[in-house]
Amino acid sequence: MTRTPKNHILPVENLTKTGSVFIVKKKISKAVISRLPRYYRYLSDLMEENVDRISSNDLAKRMKVTASQIRQDLNNFGGFGQQGYGYNVGHLHAEIGKLLGIHTHINVVIIGAGHLGQALANYQNFEKRGFIIRALFDVDPAVIGKKIRNSEVYSLKDLEKYLSSHPVDIATLTLPKERAAEVVPRLLACGIRAIWNFAHIDLPVGDDVLVENVHLSESLMQLSYRMLADKEEKERLAGKTGD
Amino acid sequence: MTRTPKNHILPVENLTKTGSVFIVKKKISKAVISRLPRYYRYLSDLMEENVDRISSNDLAKRMKVTASQIRQDLNNFGGFGQQGYGYNVGHLHAEIGKLLGIHTHINVVIIGAGHLGQALANYQNFEKRGFIIRALFDVDPAVIGKKIRNSEVYSLKDLEKYLSSHPVDIATLTLPKERAAEVVPRLLACGIRAIWNFAHIDLPVGDDVLVENVHLSESLMQLSYRMLADKEEKERLAGKTGD
Repeated sequence: MTRTPKNHILPVENLTKTGSVFIVKKKISKAVISRLPRYYRYLSDLMEENVDRISSNDLAKRMKVTASQIRQDLNNFGGFGQQGYGYNVGHLHAEIGKLLGIHTHINVVIIGAGHLGQALANYQNFEKRGFIIRALFDVDPAVIGKKIRNSEVYSLKDLEKYLSSHPVDIATLTLPKERAAEVVPRLLACGIRAIWNFAHIDLPVGDDVLVENVHLSESLMQLSYRMLADKEEKERLAGKTGD
Repeated sequence: MTRTPKNHILPVENLTKTGSVFIVKKKISKAVISRLPRYYRYLSDLMEENVDRISSNDLAKRMKVTASQIRQDLNNFGGFGQQGYGYNVGHLHAEIGKLLGIHTHINVVIIGAGHLGQALANYQNFEKRGFIIRALFDVDPAVIGKKIRNSEVYSLKDLEKYLSSHPVDIATLTLPKERAAEVVPRLLACGIRAIWNFAHIDLPVGDDVLVENVHLSESLMQLSYRMLADKEEKERLAGKTGD
């Protein structure tokens, strides 16, 4: 097949000409961004299955979304698809990886080497996606000095010393909320600007610090809320005398 | 103070009269529901601080949202506030707890007693919110029979036997994606209708099954995406020649 792939053309309002370089100006919606990791996951699976190309229709079927949503979403980024040819899986995977900022290694530390912190350090999937857990920190002498997979647990006292000599992109907080609030100003003073927060607290940081919260209890509560709402809806329908 | 509290009145379109009972008919938006656990958390904190009453203004300051959003959100549920009196913290906490379905014990099992499964079983906060981890299941003889906090690890072979004699509301999946896909039909056959899913897969279930996903890698990728976008925005601003 030697057909020249025809690239999608971006709508004009998305483009700004700066010298000879086109840059995407349109603000990408949060909804689209939130779907990118899922695309990335499906593309990773396809690569594992040695699939080289996939049409938006086939990808749509797998992901249980519409093909038009896929085309729309990926058009936001300039559109990697080619009409009548489908998406090049490896290329799209790499491009979305770049968009997600995971084409290079991202250095992560974990503050709090309790059960959850250790579980995260043991999680091999992060590494596959470019996130390298470099070190853990804790106050508990029982874990300081331990090695969790490839990473050592340091004393929390040595946090500043460590950060001054190692480049770190993301600090993960897996420690009780009181301690989390204490450690945040120390992290900021060391130049950390991205926090992956598991502590059950809204962190006291300004707009210049990126925080991604994983509040596990709240996720469970969402589930129990939906269970209850579901049960009430069923009861309501069962009790309906008809009108 | 003996002033009779004046309850907020629900707008008429929210109410349906069924016999003598008013039920809230309006569909609560997902955005509001997603904020409930956060209200619940702040109210828990207030109770720990022995605060009995709080005005929507003070609550708004703590939660860094507007007082009008708080009033609007809580009005969705019939409005627990009283004008000139504020919210009764204990009452509101209990009512939101009920709305979230956590006023009674919710029985949870964990399928997959690896690092993450064990970390969840060790997490005391769940119990405080009414979620009781009853048992864990695994295929690994090294963990079967172990006790994690108050819960025993059973062989995954005994899943059906256990579920037939113990009431379980939620199954947590902390196992590799291939195994997760295998275990789901078994859970459904046992009547499980709510799954808290940490496996890196979209579960093959119908609309009658509630799934709450916690995809940790995807959460990390959201963070790295935002880091990259932030960096590019700063570079763009720095490189701007002014127009």
